[in-house]
Amino acid sequence: MPGLTRRLAEHVAGIAFDDLPSEAIDTVKRGAIDCIGVLFAGRDEAVVQLLLGVISSGTEANLLVDRGRAGSADAALVNAAAAHALDYDDTGLDGHPSVALVPTVFAEGERLRAPGKELIAAYVAGYETWAELVLRDADKHHAKGWHPTAVFGTLAAAAAAARLAGLTSGKTTNALGIAASMAAGVVANFGSMAKPFQVGRAAQSGILAARLASAGMTASADALEHRSGFLAAVSPGGRFDAEREIERWHIARYGVNIKRYPVCYALHRAIDAALTFDVPLEKIDSIELRLGKFQAGMLRHSAPQTAPDAKFSAEFAIAAAFLRRRVGLAELSDDFVRSERVQSLMRKVRVTTTDEADADEPLFAPFDILTVRLSDGSVVEKRSERQARGHARRPLSMQELRAKFDDCTAGKQAGLFERLLSLESLAF
Amino acid sequence: MPGLTRRLAEHVAGIAFDDLPSEAIDTVKRGAIDCIGVLFAGRDEAVVQLLLGVISSGTEANLLVDRGRAGSADAALVNAAAAHALDYDDTGLDGHPSVALVPTVFAEGERLRAPGKELIAAYVAGYETWAELVLRDADKHHAKGWHPTAVFGTLAAAAAAARLAGLTSGKTTNALGIAASMAAGVVANFGSMAKPFQVGRAAQSGILAARLASAGMTASADALEHRSGFLAAVSPGGRFDAEREIERWHIARYGVNIKRYPVCYALHRAIDAALTFDVPLEKIDSIELRLGKFQAGMLRHSAPQTAPDAKFSAEFAIAAAFLRRRVGLAELSDDFVRSERVQSLMRKVRVTTTDEADADEPLFAPFDILTVRLSDGSVVEKRSERQARGHARRPLSMQELRAKFDDCTAGKQAGLFERLLSLESLAF
Repeated sequence: MPGLTRRLAEHVAGIAFDDLPSEAIDTVKRGAIDCIGVLFAGRDEAVVQLLLGVISSGTEANLLVDRGRAGSADAALVNAAAAHALDYDDTGLDGHPSVALVPTVFAEGERLRAPGKELIAAYVAGYETWAELVLRDADKHHAKGWHPTAVFGTLAAAAAAARLAGLTSGKTTNALGIAASMAAGVVANFGSMAKPFQVGRAAQSGILAARLASAGMTASADALEHRSGFLAAVSPGGRFDAEREIERWHIARYGVNIKRYPVCYALHRAIDAALTFDVPLEKIDSIELRLGKFQAGMLRHSAPQTAPDAKFSAEFAIAAAFLRRRVGLAELSDDFVRSERVQSLMRKVRVTTTDEADADEPLFAPFDILTVRLSDGSVVEKRSERQARGHARRPLSMQELRAKFDDCTAGKQAGLFERLLSLESLAF
Repeated sequence: MPGLTRRLAEHVAGIAFDDLPSEAIDTVKRGAIDCIGVLFAGRDEAVVQLLLGVISSGTEANLLVDRGRAGSADAALVNAAAAHALDYDDTGLDGHPSVALVPTVFAEGERLRAPGKELIAAYVAGYETWAELVLRDADKHHAKGWHPTAVFGTLAAAAAAARLAGLTSGKTTNALGIAASMAAGVVANFGSMAKPFQVGRAAQSGILAARLASAGMTASADALEHRSGFLAAVSPGGRFDAEREIERWHIARYGVNIKRYPVCYALHRAIDAALTFDVPLEKIDSIELRLGKFQAGMLRHSAPQTAPDAKFSAEFAIAAAFLRRRVGLAELSDDFVRSERVQSLMRKVRVTTTDEADADEPLFAPFDILTVRLSDGSVVEKRSERQARGHARRPLSMQELRAKFDDCTAGKQAGLFERLLSLESLAF
């Protein structure tokens, strides 16, 4: 039996739009809509401006929705960094699939004048590659310091770009091997500009890998599964299985989870629950939020003073939900975070943790619990659902997806939403 | 005490030419001479031509010795890939220091019009950074699949570029953190074009990291030592020490080892020994070479048919040494490898291994043993030295260094040798 790199390359090269299950096509469209929306919302972030200052001039692909053009790899870098800058993009496969894949397939697709069906097939090729790699390890890559979106995103973007260019399975093998030479990114950089940068880099590196492979660059045909290869290198404990067969359509099984709130995903279930309370603010004595201990560990800031810090603050998320009855981009402003109303309500929020872990998502508790104590001595307690609204198993309605898109784009890109919704009909 | 990233940044920002020990300056010059020589020899390799096809046009820095110009990061990419393409560049710190540092300081130094003393200080800043990081782990990074030159080279190049640009220690902290987001490269790609590519990428990424930090990009100030940071991520077993103090002038202690032969460094001691034999070729019945088992493990090819394979063949190295009384670029040709004389002598060579390991360099046996059996029944056995000629502790004479440079440049760059020899006097 050929090794994993070769088998995966053959799988990638053989993915055809006509074979895709409808759930896969639906997921790609939702991912594309969500990613383009948050890209628009993030396009003025400082990291994006910095990257625009270092890329070369070019004309191959569209940059940042209506703001000029660049070479395809550079366009993917900047667009992906913009789409991840607010940490508001979709999640899945221990990371953020669409931010690595959508900028890649749109930039490289534009260069190659690929029709919408090919963009969809290429996204799926990337998603399946990511799933095949990340799911082979018994341990969580985060635990060793790897940022899965940056690391697996590089391989996924390479697969997507290779599929778009119609590379043979031999050249796709080289593209995956070259991408293995570029896969990088660490969790320690969360909270800094280097986080969206390393995600943008994944998209850029993936396109570069495919273009170099297309031009004839070689890599080892066992670069992924070799005992000194990619899977071994990033494995937390060496407990990975390079042998098992490749499965089809992980994307139909896992999908993507759309974030309804521009804060850490660990808080989304709790915000859903907080929004169901109907208690007078002035009567609240205290609010207790019980989270899984790993969830709580991601939330570094208990008394944030800035919007970036507030994204990783349970106290802020709960305070915002009770105060404004929504947690959207308008709430993620320094002014709101620093307002006396937020700061004083945050002081009433206390986080507790449990060791219980969800069977499917061990980084999370099986559910979160919100307990509100009122000045009249009464207590109201609510349990969150197992998955946040927007999770692949509790999908948003098209109307809700559109509401987020319109919020992100300030209503300026309505036609784009419609075009993405019929992505398979896009043609040059 | 500040964390490692901050301490290292402060150290890097404070390195001044006038404080350097003379051994450091001498090592940088030797590294520069050797690197430029092998760069010249490798500049027509296929991987170099492929990379020239994907870089953007630019004018900041010299490309490939007299072959046009490019942006500084791209020039470093291409020049480093050329300098590593033949695997003939110097070694040290579990990798190849000069190929990550020389193309970086020359390309970025040219952009910044930095004088020779600053290039030297920047090289030392890079070397010290690499040493501080690679030496903190109890285990060998190779063992987990990481290619130290590509991985630590990215951090080292970032330090060198940051020092050249005169970044503050605060911005240098960001440069190191941004570089941590880009450090990549796997051992499995040895033997393919992806090997010199991932080394070139280290130089390119290092320059990019420093330029982004200079422009204001942020990274976490604990990106190296954080429990989910760079050192944890690349550590084979998590046995690294981020606490211990930074030491000065690793470069004076370890230097660089110049390769006299364009083959795997694991063979250099044995070739030295082989060249001391004085036996008639026609009387040789068999040759046994005893190596350390890790040394032998790097030598994948026992019956090579091509020059690239022959670089990792003990049988070829010994046959070439006995046949030609030298192992230079002329011997690393497909024609010579495939010649009947080489092929038939190779069949007489047998490799055996020992578990004994050198105390300082555990990848090597304490020495290698060559045993030649002749048709008259006599046996000649020789033990290699502990270090090959050209090792930092057995340095080449200036004449020998020049002989290699002239071989690599076909005698066309004599003036360049002289200029590099007085690098501290270089001025714009």
